[in-house]
Amino acid sequence: MELKDIKSPLDIKGLSVDELEKIAAQMRAAVLFRCSQIGGHVSPNLGSVESIIALHYVFNAPVDKLIFDVSHQAFPHKMLTGRVYGYINPEDFDKVGEYTDPNESPEYDLFYAGHTSPAITLSVGMAKARDLKQDNYNVVSYIGDGALSGGVAFEGLDAGGAMNSNLICIVNDNQMAIAENHGGIYSHLADLRETNGTADTNLFKAFGWDYVYVGEGNDIAKLIETFKSVKDYPRPVVVHINTQKGEGYVPAEKDRESWHFRNPFDISSGQLLKAPHGESYEKVFKQFVNRNAEKYPEFLVITSATPADLGLNAAERAKLGHHYLDVAIAEQTGVSVMAGAARGGAKVVYGVVGTFLQRAYDQLVEDWAMDGSPSLMVVMMTGIRAINDKTHLGFWDIPMITSIPDIVYLAPTTVEEFDAMMQWALDQTQYKVAVRQPVYSLQHSSEPVDTDFSDINKFKVVKKGAGVAVIAAGDFFVKGTEVVDLLKAEGIDATLINPRFISGVDRELIENLKSDHRLIVTLEDGSVEGGFGQRVASVAGPTGMKVLNYGLEKRFEDHYKWEELEESNRLTPAQIVDDISTLMKA
Amino acid sequence: MELKDIKSPLDIKGLSVDELEKIAAQMRAAVLFRCSQIGGHVSPNLGSVESIIALHYVFNAPVDKLIFDVSHQAFPHKMLTGRVYGYINPEDFDKVGEYTDPNESPEYDLFYAGHTSPAITLSVGMAKARDLKQDNYNVVSYIGDGALSGGVAFEGLDAGGAMNSNLICIVNDNQMAIAENHGGIYSHLADLRETNGTADTNLFKAFGWDYVYVGEGNDIAKLIETFKSVKDYPRPVVVHINTQKGEGYVPAEKDRESWHFRNPFDISSGQLLKAPHGESYEKVFKQFVNRNAEKYPEFLVITSATPADLGLNAAERAKLGHHYLDVAIAEQTGVSVMAGAARGGAKVVYGVVGTFLQRAYDQLVEDWAMDGSPSLMVVMMTGIRAINDKTHLGFWDIPMITSIPDIVYLAPTTVEEFDAMMQWALDQTQYKVAVRQPVYSLQHSSEPVDTDFSDINKFKVVKKGAGVAVIAAGDFFVKGTEVVDLLKAEGIDATLINPRFISGVDRELIENLKSDHRLIVTLEDGSVEGGFGQRVASVAGPTGMKVLNYGLEKRFEDHYKWEELEESNRLTPAQIVDDISTLMKA
Repeated sequence: MELKDIKSPLDIKGLSVDELEKIAAQMRAAVLFRCSQIGGHVSPNLGSVESIIALHYVFNAPVDKLIFDVSHQAFPHKMLTGRVYGYINPEDFDKVGEYTDPNESPEYDLFYAGHTSPAITLSVGMAKARDLKQDNYNVVSYIGDGALSGGVAFEGLDAGGAMNSNLICIVNDNQMAIAENHGGIYSHLADLRETNGTADTNLFKAFGWDYVYVGEGNDIAKLIETFKSVKDYPRPVVVHINTQKGEGYVPAEKDRESWHFRNPFDISSGQLLKAPHGESYEKVFKQFVNRNAEKYPEFLVITSATPADLGLNAAERAKLGHHYLDVAIAEQTGVSVMAGAARGGAKVVYGVVGTFLQRAYDQLVEDWAMDGSPSLMVVMMTGIRAINDKTHLGFWDIPMITSIPDIVYLAPTTVEEFDAMMQWALDQTQYKVAVRQPVYSLQHSSEPVDTDFSDINKFKVVKKGAGVAVIAAGDFFVKGTEVVDLLKAEGIDATLINPRFISGVDRELIENLKSDHRLIVTLEDGSVEGGFGQRVASVAGPTGMKVLNYGLEKRFEDHYKWEELEESNRLTPAQIVDDISTLMKA
Repeated sequence: MELKDIKSPLDIKGLSVDELEKIAAQMRAAVLFRCSQIGGHVSPNLGSVESIIALHYVFNAPVDKLIFDVSHQAFPHKMLTGRVYGYINPEDFDKVGEYTDPNESPEYDLFYAGHTSPAITLSVGMAKARDLKQDNYNVVSYIGDGALSGGVAFEGLDAGGAMNSNLICIVNDNQMAIAENHGGIYSHLADLRETNGTADTNLFKAFGWDYVYVGEGNDIAKLIETFKSVKDYPRPVVVHINTQKGEGYVPAEKDRESWHFRNPFDISSGQLLKAPHGESYEKVFKQFVNRNAEKYPEFLVITSATPADLGLNAAERAKLGHHYLDVAIAEQTGVSVMAGAARGGAKVVYGVVGTFLQRAYDQLVEDWAMDGSPSLMVVMMTGIRAINDKTHLGFWDIPMITSIPDIVYLAPTTVEEFDAMMQWALDQTQYKVAVRQPVYSLQHSSEPVDTDFSDINKFKVVKKGAGVAVIAAGDFFVKGTEVVDLLKAEGIDATLINPRFISGVDRELIENLKSDHRLIVTLEDGSVEGGFGQRVASVAGPTGMKVLNYGLEKRFEDHYKWEELEESNRLTPAQIVDDISTLMKA
């Protein structure tokens, strides 16, 4: 049996360990083959190969239910469940996504789990349904790659520990999240590894689970033996397996952080095919951090396990020393530590990926916005051009953040404005400020930018015209400029506005526009519903001016090309100008 | 020294244990005195008296930082920090709130922590700031009353366990949340209690904390001795204290669940002064649950530790048996278990308090909305009349839920419509449906209600008029009726619309209104920003119709009278009619 011929898990059931090891080697090659060409999560999948083979060898999916978390480590599972073509045929790469996906495989992929940490609670729900229906299968969650530090993973251990029926949790302990691991639990896992699972105390047992340890987590025979011993187990049981992230590929074994996710590379050397860009918003952020670590002894920069998105490599983090804190994959903690440290008098910036910030909505409301501790949160990877995986869309940060009182959300339009907004936010002592790091395109200001943003919700009129007012926020300001230029050719001398603030509306300005404008157009790089433009529409509602709101429709998109998504949402400047012309003629 | 004369924690520093015990007895009387008259959290505060006295005796607030969680158990702290008047003078009751509050006492109340579980992470932030500033005080979190099962509490243990400086966590283990406790951790705490803290395994040690156990958690002398032993401790340490919820008051000791929060009562008998209403939306929900537990063998109702809000008392829960699941204070788990159980084929309803649902925003997006598992979530205690504590406002569920794709959010206007919407949602197999349980007033439908809501986003025209269209959602439909009646007197024959769906807009209807309407008015019992009405404003933006959106301004309100808040938001029917008349004449 060759990997390429595997159609379902049944195909590996009769194989010897030697044959399974051959399949494992072919899987590693397939992981590298695909990722070297289109990029992807290299090391997590090199580490999970043997344990996922053993899982499918022992358990009978889809009758038994397997839930992967974080599901970017489930490539081997996809290869065994009829989707190997996505790893060996370049023309099929885009048919198979980075995460488990019920649309891709309704039978074998039960959930998305693209964000970390929900698998154990999801498995509790499935086990509960099984018991209600008096069914009789195994429910198995497979969690690791840093996912264990997310609050809902602990909640899942807590809820699962109280069950009295079959519930299996494989903890794939590869000793890392994206970067090095942080938090007490990872020291504890190290204790368990060092004592061959016999440490004095045991977190999983404390939560009520039985516990089995496998030191050789890349040893198929050993894994098969262990999984057989817990199959049909009548209680919650954790199987803690010690695996090697990046196993079997020397460049990834040597530098496991940068091989967590890798852009296209040369397999033999490990070198990236394209050098990273020179200039970037990440660099602007990094320079801001380094500057303020010098300026303020009480400066603190927080990340929740994504230091690369903050532009900070291992050497730079070491240099920042106690000014740098990685709270692990735990955004609730990121926000609360920001709030707590600000309350204690520190100068704090929390750099967080927008889609992951969803996990901390309650902390934003209750611990940050409500409290009086001025600090700065920089929201990264937002809008249409950041990440095009359904589970990681950057479309909803504006509705999420701006529905909360007492958070000032700023949308810079250029490198210089981004830097100035961050510096103002850190220096001032009155507001909780979020800044939306641009992604869309790298823009520079031709003139000196404002440095004081304390006139809250004051929009900036960049060009005064009449008839049509274009209010273009943040990343989409460049699109607003293009629209205004095109309108000129149509004989419309439009007003162009950089709102700067997206958490409120300049009511006075809107009221004043009425005198010589018939139409307001808003542009934002995010979901229209609940967003910035709808607030403008509401304020303009009684004025008699017409309003057009541009942004993304409320819909889960997946693996889109951003040019096509812009087109289908009528977001190209030509489309927008077309709509405006039609309306102005009506 | 008498309790009434205490102005600051300094006043108890020199007292003997006997004198402190006298203060404790006076505190218990004060808790009962206040709660018997205005209602409040009785049993949690009867249980925490001695430990909070000992805390203030040993530590030096405000130099040492004390963070209470959930802060409804901090009445004794308030009494010791200059606010005893709020418990002994009826005219001052409303000057002191139910939760810690930095506005009430900037020195002593560091955070609100009205939602459970953030204290440990907040303390990590404060300790981090202290270390950066090279300050030298104790940071103490005090957590209990069910708060330990929230994901962020575990995250806090994880983050705290990795610190290498002073960090103290008092676990006030009163053996209960609001109702009985659920989850593995509470069995573990029982093990620790039964072994006097020496159980084979120890969750706190596993997270990296040192650990001390105090069996006599209502014994002041013992507590003082223990707290002294951990003061200035150079590492993270948990002090696990075993206290009695309701201690010292017989009715509360006998029925700790109904004494968690108690409406005004007679102290000698414990009887409520006002009998609970006969008819209520909770009862409608309960009947719905019982009916469907009979109908579907695979029926499951989930709560996250608030069974009373679901109308279910202990006997009723016992009768539901395996159809009932309390996941503890853990809303992330509530949503994920709902998603998991639905995926496993169960018929699921999750009843959840809107303000607490904030904790599960990411699960709503990633585990529920994105997945294909039809199920029902009933959102409780929303809008202006539900809870008037700043930390528990029901104003933001509409912006939160309706910004997420693929969740149908329904707003029933009457008892009959509420029941019909829930039944449809449970029976159907296509949509993820949330239903906003009404609070505002108990209304009945005079005619048979619809039973099929599969024509998604189809608004219902209740009365066809012209000129003005009033779209009044859910709880505020009754207000819409009043507005339309008043408009008649002004000579305006307005259209009245029950939108039913608040997660989308009936675009065709809005377009059609254009022909004979000049103004659309929206009414919703929640925040205007990011809400339902702004979506209508956006859809109506290009039509030329004017729009007025009514709801609450985006602001944290506290201890308001709802009549006054309605008035200040121009939400009385007379004010709305006044605005409409003005605009129609313009």
